[in-house]
Amino acid sequence: MKTSVIVIGDELLIGQVTDTNSGFLARTMAPYGWEVEWIQTVPDTEEAITRAVNEALERSQVVLTTGGLGPTKDDITKSTLCKIFGGTLREDPAVTENILEVFKKRGLKLNELTARQAWVPTSAHVIQNRVGTAPVMWFETEEPRHVLVAMPGVPFETEHVFSHEVLPRLLETFPSQYAVSHRTLMVSDITESALAMRLAHWEESLPKHLHLAYLPKPGLIRLRLDGHSRQRDTLEREIDQAVAELKALCSENLLYDGDATPAEILLHELKKHGATVATAESCTGGNIARLITSIPGSSECMQGGVVAYSNDVKANVLGVDRNALATYGAVSEPVVLQMAQGACRVTNASIAVATSGIAGPGGGTDVKPVGTVCIAAASATGETIVHTYHFPGNRSRVVDRASTTALLMAIRLLRNLPKTTN
Amino acid sequence: MKTSVIVIGDELLIGQVTDTNSGFLARTMAPYGWEVEWIQTVPDTEEAITRAVNEALERSQVVLTTGGLGPTKDDITKSTLCKIFGGTLREDPAVTENILEVFKKRGLKLNELTARQAWVPTSAHVIQNRVGTAPVMWFETEEPRHVLVAMPGVPFETEHVFSHEVLPRLLETFPSQYAVSHRTLMVSDITESALAMRLAHWEESLPKHLHLAYLPKPGLIRLRLDGHSRQRDTLEREIDQAVAELKALCSENLLYDGDATPAEILLHELKKHGATVATAESCTGGNIARLITSIPGSSECMQGGVVAYSNDVKANVLGVDRNALATYGAVSEPVVLQMAQGACRVTNASIAVATSGIAGPGGGTDVKPVGTVCIAAASATGETIVHTYHFPGNRSRVVDRASTTALLMAIRLLRNLPKTTN
Repeated sequence: MKTSVIVIGDELLIGQVTDTNSGFLARTMAPYGWEVEWIQTVPDTEEAITRAVNEALERSQVVLTTGGLGPTKDDITKSTLCKIFGGTLREDPAVTENILEVFKKRGLKLNELTARQAWVPTSAHVIQNRVGTAPVMWFETEEPRHVLVAMPGVPFETEHVFSHEVLPRLLETFPSQYAVSHRTLMVSDITESALAMRLAHWEESLPKHLHLAYLPKPGLIRLRLDGHSRQRDTLEREIDQAVAELKALCSENLLYDGDATPAEILLHELKKHGATVATAESCTGGNIARLITSIPGSSECMQGGVVAYSNDVKANVLGVDRNALATYGAVSEPVVLQMAQGACRVTNASIAVATSGIAGPGGGTDVKPVGTVCIAAASATGETIVHTYHFPGNRSRVVDRASTTALLMAIRLLRNLPKTTN
Repeated sequence: MKTSVIVIGDELLIGQVTDTNSGFLARTMAPYGWEVEWIQTVPDTEEAITRAVNEALERSQVVLTTGGLGPTKDDITKSTLCKIFGGTLREDPAVTENILEVFKKRGLKLNELTARQAWVPTSAHVIQNRVGTAPVMWFETEEPRHVLVAMPGVPFETEHVFSHEVLPRLLETFPSQYAVSHRTLMVSDITESALAMRLAHWEESLPKHLHLAYLPKPGLIRLRLDGHSRQRDTLEREIDQAVAELKALCSENLLYDGDATPAEILLHELKKHGATVATAESCTGGNIARLITSIPGSSECMQGGVVAYSNDVKANVLGVDRNALATYGAVSEPVVLQMAQGACRVTNASIAVATSGIAGPGGGTDVKPVGTVCIAAASATGETIVHTYHFPGNRSRVVDRASTTALLMAIRLLRNLPKTTN
């Protein structure tokens, strides 16, 4: 089944907001063999929306739109769809009731503009949006049967409404036989081109309906194997076989079998070891802690951390020796190692990682240019790893690379620890 | 000047990667009056790329593509563009030299696949990519004159190459007279619809070439006033006048004149007061520290912070009273206030913010359901604010709302502090 996604909103075309809805929709539909073949972003004008909708309906049986359903003057998706599919705007009492409910929960009073959101085209079937005030509208054409579903632009609302209401109805309306399968491996400590050369011969030998994609990320590579077939059973066996071969070829560079972030892989290892983690961050400024704590259930293994931006915090909170700070400087292997050991101690964690570096744009010197980052991992039982890196790029890129590298170092430390706890 | 952007890559259509390049390109071109009228995301197939390129060239004088230029088998943008614009692929010695340079800097050895990146269509004018190995290609058609520029997909490379190489050439190739102006105000503590009703009458009275857009974000609203005109001077005066009126109407809800994040506004206030800040985060897990430290120059005002996930860290590092933890629980106003005061103390900061809450999905109770977050701000001189919130949505949404709310609370505390330092 092929779908098109139309993302509506001026704010996207001037780059003030980044669209995450189309990616969410694609990821959610993929396991059911539904492919997004076309994503288009258009401004809040009747002309652009009309043109995109007509082109999309010609291309795909299912068209999903997000955005342009708000209460304000610049939101014209609803009136435009009413012109395309016919009918007139009329108040839907069930929508009014839902809006009153949502406003009551939020402790707000209904006003005229929001009340107008209950007016919907008579040509649309309404799906209630339980987490917001803009109703979801399902339009259909006959012979050939095409469906367009208009959803709000707020990512939280789209995600809720699509998963709970829209997708089940789409699967019922268009039952599918076609099987699609994806598998992802995480690979580290190798460049994309070196990996591609190692895999070239094997890649050539893949059957035509299997396809390998390289998705490099800072510090690692995601390898994704995709397969499409009418034979679901055969496809699963073929993919299993290919993944086994691929894992053998990746050998010592294989980090993880599955699609996971470094923080997720670390949590997985921590649980396996019955261990806990802490962070001591200077240049990454809390980013490593955030990456870990953004995962549900991380509180089981995450003790906490210290953002040690100033030298006072490094010394007073983490107990870094002031002599070491004076002698080697804050960005040095002795200091970052003491930071990791201090974090272990003050939080009672089994292991800790620490970063200290120059993220830029200011602060660089000839000896320690922007991008210089010292990273350490230490365990409560005395094992340590420490290394100095030079990462390319701007501030956010240096922070990303340093965070990923620190998480990978923690995984390496854990995998080498004697397993005493299990 | 109208431009089209084509974003190329299977990974975008299955939602594995989020496109940020199109937004960057739009934001960077906007001040020059260049509008992105069309963004399309297509898979790595010759058919899709060809169709999108032909449609875009029909629509817009300038077409920008990103992605599909990597060294691996799935990247076919270059060969497809060679078919569309004619010519053959031939090695460009200057590109080979650049690739060798880039690899040398990264401490890597050149291999065959990467060497192939130096092969470019004879129909393209090559622009060197100093921060990566994929060359940028500039294609032109005559009568009418259209330009297509193919750039790599790695955001860092696209950003560097577009700002330094591509945009200057585009501005030279298509000099423009048309003026465009944007101004943004940040507004808080009001719903979108209530604000829209307050502004409705004024909005109606705006001249046709000025347009107001509402961009709600968790906890605040961005108001963007856009203007388009052939008269640059008149337009600037009109926008200034309208912004002055708008600020008066926003009144006490006006948070900031400009487009800035809450963390940027806080840093601005801190510098004005000669003050410093620290964080003590439980449920936000380092996110507030990350938001602050992601801003260049934040080290001037940011002392550091503590991610106090476990009660041990709350007590041992921040000095929270264990009786208070036992009596009121970790998610309580007395505890979060002590966390903020403790952070102030151990980091020597002028003010600190603290969060403690239940971000979910687990951990909720009848009394303290998921979304309950206690937030406090405290100053070293004894001023405090503390409040309990109930935020809707999933884990990441609760963390976002709690982080924004804490930053806004810190701004409020600072604005009410007696100015002793200046």
